[in-house]
Amino acid sequence: MHTLDKLRHTIPALRISTEQSDLAHYGRDWTRRWTPAPLAIVFPADTAEVQALVQWARATGTPLVPSGGRTGLSGGAVAANGEVVVSLERMNRILAFDPVDRTLTVQAGATLQSVQDAAGKQGLSYPVDFASRGSCTIGGTIATNAGGIRVIRHGNTREWIAGLTLVAGTGEVMRLNRGLIKNSSGYDLRHLVIGSEGTLGIVTEAIVRLGAPLPASKVVLLALPSFDAVMAAFVEVRGALGLQAFEFFSGDALRHVVAHGAQDPFAEMHPAYALVEVDSIDDAEETEMLAVLERCLERGVASDIVVAGSDAQVAALWRLRESITESIAARTPYKNDIAVRVSALPAFLAEAEALLAAGYPTFEVIWFGHIGDGNLHISILRPEDLAPDAFVAHCEHATDMLADVLARHDGSISAEHGIGLVKKPWLARMRGEAEMVRLRGIRETFDPDGILNPGKVFD
Amino acid sequence: MHTLDKLRHTIPALRISTEQSDLAHYGRDWTRRWTPAPLAIVFPADTAEVQALVQWARATGTPLVPSGGRTGLSGGAVAANGEVVVSLERMNRILAFDPVDRTLTVQAGATLQSVQDAAGKQGLSYPVDFASRGSCTIGGTIATNAGGIRVIRHGNTREWIAGLTLVAGTGEVMRLNRGLIKNSSGYDLRHLVIGSEGTLGIVTEAIVRLGAPLPASKVVLLALPSFDAVMAAFVEVRGALGLQAFEFFSGDALRHVVAHGAQDPFAEMHPAYALVEVDSIDDAEETEMLAVLERCLERGVASDIVVAGSDAQVAALWRLRESITESIAARTPYKNDIAVRVSALPAFLAEAEALLAAGYPTFEVIWFGHIGDGNLHISILRPEDLAPDAFVAHCEHATDMLADVLARHDGSISAEHGIGLVKKPWLARMRGEAEMVRLRGIRETFDPDGILNPGKVFD
Ligand SMILES: Cc1cc2nc3c(=O)[nH]c(=O)nc-3n(C[C@H](O)[C@H](O)[C@H](O)COP(=O)(O)OP(=O)(O)OC[C@H]3O[C@@H](n4cnc5c(N)ncnc54)[C@H](O)[C@@H]3O)c2cc1C
Ligand SMILES: Cc1cc2nc3c(=O)[nH]c(=O)nc-3n(C[C@H](O)[C@H](O)[C@H](O)COP(=O)(O)OP(=O)(O)OC[C@H]3O[C@@H](n4cnc5c(N)ncnc54)[C@H](O)[C@@H]3O)c2cc1C
Repeated sequence: MHTLDKLRHTIPALRISTEQSDLAHYGRDWTRRWTPAPLAIVFPADTAEVQALVQWARATGTPLVPSGGRTGLSGGAVAANGEVVVSLERMNRILAFDPVDRTLTVQAGATLQSVQDAAGKQGLSYPVDFASRGSCTIGGTIATNAGGIRVIRHGNTREWIAGLTLVAGTGEVMRLNRGLIKNSSGYDLRHLVIGSEGTLGIVTEAIVRLGAPLPASKVVLLALPSFDAVMAAFVEVRGALGLQAFEFFSGDALRHVVAHGAQDPFAEMHPAYALVEVDSIDDAEETEMLAVLERCLERGVASDIVVAGSDAQVAALWRLRESITESIAARTPYKNDIAVRVSALPAFLAEAEALLAAGYPTFEVIWFGHIGDGNLHISILRPEDLAPDAFVAHCEHATDMLADVLARHDGSISAEHGIGLVKKPWLARMRGEAEMVRLRGIRETFDPDGILNPGKVFD
Repeated sequence: MHTLDKLRHTIPALRISTEQSDLAHYGRDWTRRWTPAPLAIVFPADTAEVQALVQWARATGTPLVPSGGRTGLSGGAVAANGEVVVSLERMNRILAFDPVDRTLTVQAGATLQSVQDAAGKQGLSYPVDFASRGSCTIGGTIATNAGGIRVIRHGNTREWIAGLTLVAGTGEVMRLNRGLIKNSSGYDLRHLVIGSEGTLGIVTEAIVRLGAPLPASKVVLLALPSFDAVMAAFVEVRGALGLQAFEFFSGDALRHVVAHGAQDPFAEMHPAYALVEVDSIDDAEETEMLAVLERCLERGVASDIVVAGSDAQVAALWRLRESITESIAARTPYKNDIAVRVSALPAFLAEAEALLAAGYPTFEVIWFGHIGDGNLHISILRPEDLAPDAFVAHCEHATDMLADVLARHDGSISAEHGIGLVKKPWLARMRGEAEMVRLRGIRETFDPDGILNPGKVFD
């Protein structure tokens, strides 16, 4: 208690919890692989409190874990070694809207959903979007450069951040880029912080750009005869229609979602599916869409098609895709979140499938992903008769082989979830020693005492 | 000659020139303020030669200046202190097009125009664009994160770079991001290199993303009754039409362009002009555009309007905007390239105008810029009776005061031209000491011996 007494004394107003239930709750994220063991959870109210906290941590050598909604899938927000968890959950306000700049200034603990809603109220949109929108925070999405279902049209989180306030590991506060559209004045530290997973500083505020409202759209589910047909469908649709989303999942994924309570819109099962959302502003666009779908059926690219005819059907189709992660969560899946160039997907997919089928014939593997971004989620489900540790060891061996395939295809071991603890063993293989030296040098520059998320991303 | 003999011996195939005319030509950029004094100019043929060169420079402590088209406006490519200039001009090939990824792989010395043309041949576009397109290089645009006339719709160069090959100051070659759309695997060094003005490494290749062809458009020139009307016109047009470009220039700017040979489309002079390009795909859009223009006239936002009716007229109107830089070049202007948030422009503009008018009543000041990005170019022309050195001293004093106004408005001392030598005195004031420490740390990590563009951007 000595350390925390000092903290209470240094920042009397800081809210601190050491309740067992809080330690368990705030000490882990969606991975559930590590046993939470934080020293305490703190809930700062503003940037000044975060700054005082980091200064205290530096002075006392206490490791800190920045914490958003803990929906992360890489263990980045896990506290299993006596760290102090810095929850941004009280810093969840929308601070300002500027109609000329079309920006919102928000605290880092604001949920993605609340930012989307605030944008909508102004007749604009914040197009970064994915299933955990109700719980994940803007700070967490910045820290992981989150992607999601609209990347194909609107890019990753990175594209939408016009400025951010950072409390660096040194305890200094920096207001990076301050909302500017153009700023060619020395290295852009904002872009360095985006995707840094809490290892350079704690993001306390952000200025996010807003876009025009998403155009009216149609949502279609394509049943596909094979994995290969996914790429063929993608090329077909992208060439002719304004794509808003193009999501893929396997027949096995759909099986889990249906077992979890969803309704299969088709009469029979298919090897793969593509959930497609396309612009449909006027009759001409709708006619064009129907022609493209017709062509997909004629050419055997698709076996069957459902077009959502109501908002309820749109929601039902999206739910098929969006509840995959939840529907398999009870099986504590080992997740891979890989990316290659879209052009390299077919070759990579074939090699990866062969590798997993040969090496792990008894494991159930669930495939889904953002195919238009070259991003595949490969979730391996734990057989009930295999102990968790042995299962993880098996999966890490599989990932090791996958990493070699990825390296050959110039791919990435983490497309959008981040490295955290889960993918740390493979970062150096992906980046190479020359890049790793720079990553270490940069971390040292921002956090010389190594108090921010130590042990995460890389050592 | 001792040093160069060693270089010839180390890399026998490397093309080297010490011709007086080459030293003068390759030793300077568009600023013309410094007397060129390089030791030699080298013309590597590929990444391997660049790497060997950097290794040699490191071993011998020879400073290098990376050099593209030398259209830079900040002195970034100037060699005035016995440096070896590394011209990328032989590395100007388009290496590959990928139709699935919609990317071009190009050597860094390819001109912007050649990349635009190669994109066009594939039925796609590379939307980064500005007047020096025929001479500036992709490497130069990456090194300055160039902006230009399409930022309002398509963003800066940063948004279009999916990968780049860097020879770092250590002599190591890094292939950063390798064309991936999603890659959340450690700090994104690609974004650190973009905008680094040759101080971290030499970019030898890039993978650039291509976009859909620009939609059909109409080009309009608005004559405006005042500077204030520029913002009013911008808000009016942006609210109703699909903006492709919104460029502003003053009556004085037009006067120079007309004196330089262009045709004034209006019967009389006006205080300010806006060159506007908007989507005009169908009759509905054209009707809407005419209604908006009508409204601008009725409300007194615009005094007069010309709509280009032919390709020749489009070119003639664009020429009015694009030849400003050239038309004043003979007056060796002192350029400011500032940015503030768009919402802060009116207040900044008023303060900046007052400041310059009071402090320098006899100086001619030419205003133009990319108003939709919050980016103003303020060019001060040298009175003929003032010696160049005294003129620069005056202008630096003015910039000093401008920098204070900028700091108050959270602005930037360089929006798109970079810091180079010209804006170096003000970088620290803009970024603050905490950020400067990180910039220095990062440079040290990439270029520990300080051989790349020493003395540029910051010390
Ligand atoms: C059902 C489901 C679907 C998902 N779908 C997607 C998807 O489509 N695309 C996608 O990209 N991700 C997806 N995710 C993953 C996750 O939601 C995102 O990574 C999200 O960005 C995490 O936000 P968070 O606030 O929960 O962060 P946390 O999990 O709390 O933290 C994530 C990382 O960021 C750091 N961090 C958090 N806040 C800050 C801060 N303020 N300053 C500095 N560092 C901070 C943490 O230390 C940690 O390293 C999904 C997750 C779930 C559960
Ligand atoms: C008429 C005119 C109009 C212009 N309009 C615009 C405009 O609208 N928007 C805009 O942003 N700029 C504009 N510019 C400025 C200039 O064209 C851009 O900055 C351009 O990006 C410079 O490219 P370059 O190849 O000429 O670079 P250079 O001038 O040769 O170099 C610029 C900087 O980049 C570095 N560099 C060059 N190549 C490399 C490389 N391969 N690797 C590492 N570092 C390198 C140099 O060391 C230097 O620091 C304009 C210039 C002119 C003359």
